[in-house]
Amino acid sequence: MSQDSYRIQKYPAVKLEEGNLVAVEQLVSEEAPLTIYLNGKELVTMLCSPNEEKYITLGFLVTEGMIHDIEAITDLTIDSERGFIWVEADTVFPNVANTYLKRCLTACCGRGRTGFYFANDARTIKSIESNLKISAAEILSYSVMLEELSATYHMTHGVHCGALATKGEFLLYSEDIGRHNVFDKLYGKCLEMKIPTTDKVIVFSGRISSEILIKVSKMAIPLIIARAVPTSLAIGLAEDLGITLVGAAKGESFFVYTHKDRVTT
Amino acid sequence: MSQDSYRIQKYPAVKLEEGNLVAVEQLVSEEAPLTIYLNGKELVTMLCSPNEEKYITLGFLVTEGMIHDIEAITDLTIDSERGFIWVEADTVFPNVANTYLKRCLTACCGRGRTGFYFANDARTIKSIESNLKISAAEILSYSVMLEELSATYHMTHGVHCGALATKGEFLLYSEDIGRHNVFDKLYGKCLEMKIPTTDKVIVFSGRISSEILIKVSKMAIPLIIARAVPTSLAIGLAEDLGITLVGAAKGESFFVYTHKDRVTT
Repeated sequence: MSQDSYRIQKYPAVKLEEGNLVAVEQLVSEEAPLTIYLNGKELVTMLCSPNEEKYITLGFLVTEGMIHDIEAITDLTIDSERGFIWVEADTVFPNVANTYLKRCLTACCGRGRTGFYFANDARTIKSIESNLKISAAEILSYSVMLEELSATYHMTHGVHCGALATKGEFLLYSEDIGRHNVFDKLYGKCLEMKIPTTDKVIVFSGRISSEILIKVSKMAIPLIIARAVPTSLAIGLAEDLGITLVGAAKGESFFVYTHKDRVTT
Repeated sequence: MSQDSYRIQKYPAVKLEEGNLVAVEQLVSEEAPLTIYLNGKELVTMLCSPNEEKYITLGFLVTEGMIHDIEAITDLTIDSERGFIWVEADTVFPNVANTYLKRCLTACCGRGRTGFYFANDARTIKSIESNLKISAAEILSYSVMLEELSATYHMTHGVHCGALATKGEFLLYSEDIGRHNVFDKLYGKCLEMKIPTTDKVIVFSGRISSEILIKVSKMAIPLIIARAVPTSLAIGLAEDLGITLVGAAKGESFFVYTHKDRVTT
């Protein structure tokens, strides 16, 4: 079995342990952008674990119908460090490539740097300022409340769920098979009901990748509590965008990765 | 808290229970396409849990930067049954909308029907014929092997993992923060190493949505074993495309949702 070396990073976090917040180093999965150029044109930027760049590109190009088989590829150059891959190929299906997801990176983007945004995002994203404080007990209570609420999850184990919370209570709750969709549903309700978000927190069942963190930022939510863990890129963005990221909030424990001063014992 | 009614479906499955395959009805989360039209133009098709269509659309349009705020919306019409939503809005950001993911549905597509494919997929997707048989013991063994292999998962709890398996062994293994990426990495290796796939199985850590099932189909893999559960749309596609879908394969149990004759005790 072939598998490139694992890419894991250590982050300074604080952990709730027997009621105390203690400094720890926590292992986190690396997430990074990989941009594929096909015959000189930017095709797509994927967010992925930065290894096996060649294989993910081959599999992507064939299963998405951009090329018929890998014999069509005449040249392939990988820049693992910066996350670029250039593919030259005969007999590309141009219509397919043209209709595919194409988003432009801003000039500031570089692999491994936290300043990674899509051009669409640059317009709407902003650093959050909020005086919000939350106690460890409130965080643990929200995590339990979310777990108990999700009837669909208990019946099917097949959905993610999220809630908008404040002062010990949930104001809004949504479920979806897709992680992003949970946030769009919650934010749609906030917009229609004109609910201010900068003094609220989001409680979420799933993992926090960069795309989820950007959703949270656009919602102007200063703190997210996830029952699962964040990626490296999500932590970097949360640091930059002023968002407190609480992960692995289960049982009697959680980790705070960024803007830790908002969490008290 | 507002939350639309839950959408859950019952599917006839077989379950491994104390060593026997027994017929059961299993609850599954519903997954369905939702296509948003913005000012008469098709903008995007999302795969989601089919409720709260209005809210997911409002949240999506604002967080993705298509419109500045919901005051810009002059009209909104929802066809929940077929999964369409038409939005009329002033001051749309046309460049953003034009560069966004745009894939066309084939004419046969209809909400709730299993004949749902994207146009890109129609070219490369085909029903699988395979004489593959697998025993319940082999399925359980693969699930344990995957769980034990994932060192990154054990360290970070932040990745998905998958393996290509045959005759009790794993030939290939990949990990990624993204579910799709695991399949692209595995398939890239199959392509480069010219490994035939029609007599192999895939073992996967995560949930099986329609997009994952379509990846499996394009890889021409006849059987997938997931440690997590499938969605309704994935089950429908697996039925149509000749793929055996085994889910919730953990401990001493699993469910077979489609093409059950390939699984023996």
